[in-house]
Amino acid sequence: MIRDKIEQSISILQELNIDLWMIFTRESSTVHDPSLDLVVGGNVTWASAFLIGKGGEKIAILGSLDTAAHEELGIYNEIVPYVKGITEPLIETLKKLDPKKIAINFSVNDETADGLTHGQYLLLCNILEGTPYANRLISSEGVVSRLRSRKTEPEIRNIERACTETVDLFAKMNDHIRTGMTEKEIAAVMVKIMEDKGLERAWDEDHCPAVFTGPESAGAHAGPTDRTMEPGHLMNVDFGMRFEGYCSDLQRTWYCLKPGEMEPPAIVMKAFNGIRDAIRMSGEFLKPGVKGKEVDAVARGHITSLGFDEYPHALGHQIGRHAHDGAGLLCPAWERYGTRPDSIVEEGQCYTLEPRITVPGHGVATMEEIVVVTKDGVRYLSEPQTKIMLL
Amino acid sequence: MIRDKIEQSISILQELNIDLWMIFTRESSTVHDPSLDLVVGGNVTWASAFLIGKGGEKIAILGSLDTAAHEELGIYNEIVPYVKGITEPLIETLKKLDPKKIAINFSVNDETADGLTHGQYLLLCNILEGTPYANRLISSEGVVSRLRSRKTEPEIRNIERACTETVDLFAKMNDHIRTGMTEKEIAAVMVKIMEDKGLERAWDEDHCPAVFTGPESAGAHAGPTDRTMEPGHLMNVDFGMRFEGYCSDLQRTWYCLKPGEMEPPAIVMKAFNGIRDAIRMSGEFLKPGVKGKEVDAVARGHITSLGFDEYPHALGHQIGRHAHDGAGLLCPAWERYGTRPDSIVEEGQCYTLEPRITVPGHGVATMEEIVVVTKDGVRYLSEPQTKIMLL
Repeated sequence: MIRDKIEQSISILQELNIDLWMIFTRESSTVHDPSLDLVVGGNVTWASAFLIGKGGEKIAILGSLDTAAHEELGIYNEIVPYVKGITEPLIETLKKLDPKKIAINFSVNDETADGLTHGQYLLLCNILEGTPYANRLISSEGVVSRLRSRKTEPEIRNIERACTETVDLFAKMNDHIRTGMTEKEIAAVMVKIMEDKGLERAWDEDHCPAVFTGPESAGAHAGPTDRTMEPGHLMNVDFGMRFEGYCSDLQRTWYCLKPGEMEPPAIVMKAFNGIRDAIRMSGEFLKPGVKGKEVDAVARGHITSLGFDEYPHALGHQIGRHAHDGAGLLCPAWERYGTRPDSIVEEGQCYTLEPRITVPGHGVATMEEIVVVTKDGVRYLSEPQTKIMLL
Repeated sequence: MIRDKIEQSISILQELNIDLWMIFTRESSTVHDPSLDLVVGGNVTWASAFLIGKGGEKIAILGSLDTAAHEELGIYNEIVPYVKGITEPLIETLKKLDPKKIAINFSVNDETADGLTHGQYLLLCNILEGTPYANRLISSEGVVSRLRSRKTEPEIRNIERACTETVDLFAKMNDHIRTGMTEKEIAAVMVKIMEDKGLERAWDEDHCPAVFTGPESAGAHAGPTDRTMEPGHLMNVDFGMRFEGYCSDLQRTWYCLKPGEMEPPAIVMKAFNGIRDAIRMSGEFLKPGVKGKEVDAVARGHITSLGFDEYPHALGHQIGRHAHDGAGLLCPAWERYGTRPDSIVEEGQCYTLEPRITVPGHGVATMEEIVVVTKDGVRYLSEPQTKIMLL
């Protein structure tokens, strides 16, 4: 997988006419540049540089005690060890390559391309001071976002498998949950099924799974509480699992019938169907060449046209090695999204679609599906929820 | 524990006369500022600021969907949510506090204080442009390194327990290892004992435990291989476990007797005793007020005086929530260590002592112990190895 991604990155460097991509990093188990998982596959202790060249060069400059582990990995065919300092071997290597543009690992807009810390950046400037390379540094955002976005076939297969297992888990949990259970108890049911599958969570344990029931619940990004699922509640879960390093991230909605109720109230069904249709409509619109904010507007516009409040977040994010993965985002043109609303959708990207509606007195209706962008549209990697689940 | 560390950080701000410490971060499960584990205890999705003031202020500015989780944690008594962008609430909050000095989360020298990525730094500069606060930013290195270094009593107890469990594991593994086993088999014995104890590794699975046998082994920072332990080999292991979030990091040395040998060769014993004495002597020298490079020189000088090569790394690092934790380092004045060789030892710091000697034809002799700096010396948190273990 790593060799594939390195070959892909070399062709992206050629496409963008960038001579060199340099990941500058240190103590990578303390602050970890997520690009290391894509094109290195190991960690480092001391200041280190991983160089990938437009001409196919693969060079690692490492503290001497880190070299054995990377030789064992066998990804970088030239490994330059140092004992006292990285300045001399780094400058010597740059002189040999003489790159006109050096893309380094920071990005204002894409946190998955922003692994260089500010202290390390100052250190790098200090090392390069007085050399011609100091003025040749640019952001590697364009390289990393393309590399992360353009999923290879094996990557898509892993995401699809993670989705299939998660949809299966939702089906299985229906046999074990009932009115009166707490959010924590429902989460425990999900964790048990996950463990039986031998899979791991896609994000932090404290809110993976997240379970929200009723009108008083936090609704998103918080851990399960002792709140109980009561008749009249909308209940939703947000959960993802990892298969061979690749994530799912899906949401599902239940309604808890009151005694005597045969179906959910009209307002609940209007919200549920609104979410379902917003996902379907935005999925139909999504294709290579459209802008992220245009896709978001399709879903957002449908929901506000029904008289509901707009959701306070993006319609969808990319997914891959992380649940939030890569720059392209289906989001409105709000400050917090930087330049992302204008990002252009490309073939091979995998997006979530996850609008939400708060229904006063009942809770939150929300579904989240995952699609891969094809040549002229999308293919669903998760089987969409089309009917509200009842308890 | 987090409340204790926040109170400690307020008194450090007063000591350094810094008005405000701001951790600026985003998507903290993608790139994680290690200071979050000290004074936040949770993650965030969108651009966020955690503000701790000299006057005891504790304010979190968060994307609206992140607020519930942090309200649940209950650490920050003022939580300011935003939907569209952090600029307005951040500037409003700074206006209210009007800090003269704002320490932010970057550091050239200390990677555990360097969680602000360069892209986020540029974003922050952009947000503050045109306000008086743009020119009031300084590094929070001094705050974070003191906060991380000055272990509270509960923190020291956790590290000591992690050490005790690790020393016990070394004793137990002696019943299960024998000549002819591979490094991987020996590592598996260690992992089994760890799992029986219900504890976790202190660092990456790929080289925790690390096992090195014989003259051909990597010697450090690499994973176990299929090399077998043969008569005449020095074998060493490097292993750490985590107790309640706090780490051990210890090394031990074995010699594998040849048929007919009653004791290791003289050169092996000279190296083993050299390491043992270098640890003892540097431990006797270590006390508040001395410089890191002076402590390193005691051990390094002893080893070179015996005619062995000097070790290609520092004598010791601090330990705590990470195996490598905090700026102060017992290291020589080499470029790669930046300003750390001149760091001053303080009471309450916990250091490893870990010189090494390569013995040609046999392998590497190395022990690693952990001490806490007391008022006038050190106390060992690990029971030191004084005799070479034989197989």
